[in-house]
Amino acid sequence: MNKTKQKILSKALALYNRDGVSNVSIRQLAKDVGIAHSNLIYHYPTHEDIVLGLHDLMLREALELNTGLVQNDSPLKSLYETTKTGFSVVYEFRFFFKELQYICKAFSKVKEVLRQVEKVRYVMYKKVIGDMIASDLIRSEEFDGEFDDLIVRIKIYSDHWLESSSIYDDLSKEEKINKYSYLLLQHIYPYLTDKGKDEFKRIQITTTKPH
Amino acid sequence: MNKTKQKILSKALALYNRDGVSNVSIRQLAKDVGIAHSNLIYHYPTHEDIVLGLHDLMLREALELNTGLVQNDSPLKSLYETTKTGFSVVYEFRFFFKELQYICKAFSKVKEVLRQVEKVRYVMYKKVIGDMIASDLIRSEEFDGEFDDLIVRIKIYSDHWLESSSIYDDLSKEEKINKYSYLLLQHIYPYLTDKGKDEFKRIQITTTKPH
Repeated sequence: MNKTKQKILSKALALYNRDGVSNVSIRQLAKDVGIAHSNLIYHYPTHEDIVLGLHDLMLREALELNTGLVQNDSPLKSLYETTKTGFSVVYEFRFFFKELQYICKAFSKVKEVLRQVEKVRYVMYKKVIGDMIASDLIRSEEFDGEFDDLIVRIKIYSDHWLESSSIYDDLSKEEKINKYSYLLLQHIYPYLTDKGKDEFKRIQITTTKPH
Repeated sequence: MNKTKQKILSKALALYNRDGVSNVSIRQLAKDVGIAHSNLIYHYPTHEDIVLGLHDLMLREALELNTGLVQNDSPLKSLYETTKTGFSVVYEFRFFFKELQYICKAFSKVKEVLRQVEKVRYVMYKKVIGDMIASDLIRSEEFDGEFDDLIVRIKIYSDHWLESSSIYDDLSKEEKINKYSYLLLQHIYPYLTDKGKDEFKRIQITTTKPH
């Protein structure tokens, strides 16, 4: 990505996070980046293009951070670390999650991308759960589709914890990320085998839990 | 509530659901209700007052519908029926859940009411879970705060399933309510005792499960 595009996305992210997508004009953005309006729309003709660019950046960043994580021998610990990393990225791109409904309504391409990404996320969780079953950390399904249902619940949770937190919590960024990463693991906890629960205790995933 | 107020809230609900709160003007609302602008603002000076009125109506409606439910001897079945009723009301007042973030930001009194209602919801779930533990349908806590964590997850889920559904699903109203009521019960399922699981099978809570 060239430097101008980088600067545009970086400034757009700051403005979107501060004011909300619908309250930022292309003209204001150009002014804040310090480039001509015509130059900005050459790179990104519309807000939809910018939001798509930011969404792409968000995915790359999450992927990069996760690739950089130190490997460890506990799948539960790995899931926790991956979640914390992912939720930090969610926080960084928070306009996206706070305005998900508006964004999906206003920008149909973004909605389409989200629906594609959901499929990737599904496969990822399916693998994580499958691996944990294979390692006897999670019990097997008690009925058909039980873990597909769990993945849907995790999706709703992951997309919306930030929004919920902004209504009900008075927490710092760090506290939010810790609290909600811990609660994501709580989705998995009741499916753990005795071995899985021992593992869960061993890796000492805790939260200060200020609800 | 007098008839004019009723008419205003009913029309406001239809317009909010169709166009979104921020796209409806007080003037347009007065016109659609068929009363003078001055008459409307005599009853509801601002959108915040209307949204508060609708939120109050929503709670009353949920309460009334639940009171009218036929009592049955299964706490699990009761929770399921209560959830379906509650989620039908969520669907009826869907503008509220689709624009939760905007509404809480724009109308601080609504946010305050939500934070109060959350406390009531917490007590309600705490009682439901406590009763099920007493009836040996749910196991006891394996660590301190386990069910408080569950209630937080249920809150996020209940507030946001509709929003998520509007992004990822292509379902009818009935299908949505069935699917997401079923998934709410899935939050409880892994904590059920063997007796609870037998009960769950017996009452045959199913979904057509079109994910």
